[in-house]
Amino acid sequence: MKAEMYFVIEKYMQQCMNDSAHDTQHVYRVLYTALDIAKFFEVDTEILITAVLLHDIGREAQFKNNKIDHAIIGADMAYQFLLSINWNERRSNHVKDCISTHRYRNTNPPESIEAKILYDADKIDVIGTLGIARTLIYIGITEQPLYSVDQHGQVLDGNEDEESSFFKEYSYKLKNVHNNLFTSRAKEIAAKRLKGSIDFYEDIFSTVKDNHEKGLALLHEALIKEI
Amino acid sequence: MKAEMYFVIEKYMQQCMNDSAHDTQHVYRVLYTALDIAKFFEVDTEILITAVLLHDIGREAQFKNNKIDHAIIGADMAYQFLLSINWNERRSNHVKDCISTHRYRNTNPPESIEAKILYDADKIDVIGTLGIARTLIYIGITEQPLYSVDQHGQVLDGNEDEESSFFKEYSYKLKNVHNNLFTSRAKEIAAKRLKGSIDFYEDIFSTVKDNHEKGLALLHEALIKEI
Repeated sequence: MKAEMYFVIEKYMQQCMNDSAHDTQHVYRVLYTALDIAKFFEVDTEILITAVLLHDIGREAQFKNNKIDHAIIGADMAYQFLLSINWNERRSNHVKDCISTHRYRNTNPPESIEAKILYDADKIDVIGTLGIARTLIYIGITEQPLYSVDQHGQVLDGNEDEESSFFKEYSYKLKNVHNNLFTSRAKEIAAKRLKGSIDFYEDIFSTVKDNHEKGLALLHEALIKEI
Repeated sequence: MKAEMYFVIEKYMQQCMNDSAHDTQHVYRVLYTALDIAKFFEVDTEILITAVLLHDIGREAQFKNNKIDHAIIGADMAYQFLLSINWNERRSNHVKDCISTHRYRNTNPPESIEAKILYDADKIDVIGTLGIARTLIYIGITEQPLYSVDQHGQVLDGNEDEESSFFKEYSYKLKNVHNNLFTSRAKEIAAKRLKGSIDFYEDIFSTVKDNHEKGLALLHEALIKEI
C-alpha cells in the first residue's frame, strides 16, 4: 500500500473519531494484530489496512443514536469516502463488506479473508487484560457499577445478574469471546492472552466476595450488641 | 453502635453521594475492611463506623470545584450533621478529625486509632485488582487514555510519562500505595492483594508493547514495499 494513501485514510479515520484516544488506540492495535494474522494468508494488504483503519468510524453516529449500527453506517461512510478519493467501485465495495460484517453475530458473516481477519483482530482486542481494561473504561464512561449485591448485601458473580455491571459483562461476554474466531493464528494469540483476564476476574471476585462476606458478619455483630 | 443510628448515618451518606453505585460500593468495602482491622485494636466502634460511612461525602463538592479538598469539606459536613442529630461536640469532633486526615500526604497525619484505621482501610481499596478496576473506571470517567506512545508510536511504560494515562497512574501511584500504611493488619491484607495488580500491569504492558512493536514493523514493511 502506498504510504501516501495510508496517511490520507488515517487522517480521515482520526477526524471521524474526534481524536478520541481510546478509540484510535484500539484501531492501531487492531491494525497491528491484523497484520500479524495476515502473514499466514494471501491477503490484499491495501484492502485489509483500509478496512481496519475505517472499521469503527460509525461509532460517533451510534453513540448519538443507539438504534444505528456502527458497522452498517461505518461501512457506508467508508464506501463513500473511498469513492471520493478515486477508489474504484469494486475495491470500495470490498472494504464496505469487511466493515459491515465486523460485528457479525447470527447473520451476514465475514466472507473474504480480509473480512475474517478484521473480525478476528477486533475480537482479539477484547480478550485478556486488554479486554478487562477496555471494559472497565466503558463501565466508567457509562456509569455502571463494578458488581451487584443481593438483598443481604452479598456480592453476585455476574452469571445470573439482572442489573448491568462489570461482573455481568465479564460473565456474559468477555469470557466467551475467544470461542468465535475464524483464523487459527487468531486462536493462537487469543489462547496466550486468555489467562490474564481469567486471573483478574477470579482475583477481584474473590477479593470483594470475601470483603463483603466477612464485613457483613462483623457489622452485624457490631450493630446487634448494643440494640 | 445502635442499628437505628447506623441507618440514619448511612441514609445521609447515600444522599450526599447521589446514590452513585461506584462511590457507595467503595464506602461499604472500606467499612468492611475497617471492621476487620479493628478486631486487632481497642476501638470506639461507633466513631469508626461513622467516620468510614461519611469519609467521602465531600466528593461531590470537590467534583464541582477541584480547588476544594473533599477531606476537609467532608469533615465539616460530617461534624455539622452529627451535631444536628444530637451527637455531642467531643464525639462529632473525633469523627471530623478522622475524616480530615484520611487523605494524609505530608502534614496533618491521622492520630487516633480510628483515624489510622480509616486511612488504612481507604488505601487498601486501591491496592490489588480492586485498585486496578477503580482506576480504570476513573480513567473512563475522566476520558484519559490507557497509555501514551512516543513519537515513533511505541508504547511508554508510564514511569517517565508526561501525559496522564492509566500506565502513568499505575507507575506513579498505584504500585506504591501499600508502602504508607499504619497498622500491621492492613499491611497483611495489602501484601495478599498486591500480586493481582502487579500481574495485571505486567500482562497488559507486555501485551500492548509487543503488539505495537511487531505491528509497527509489519506496517513499515507493508507501506515501504510499494512506495
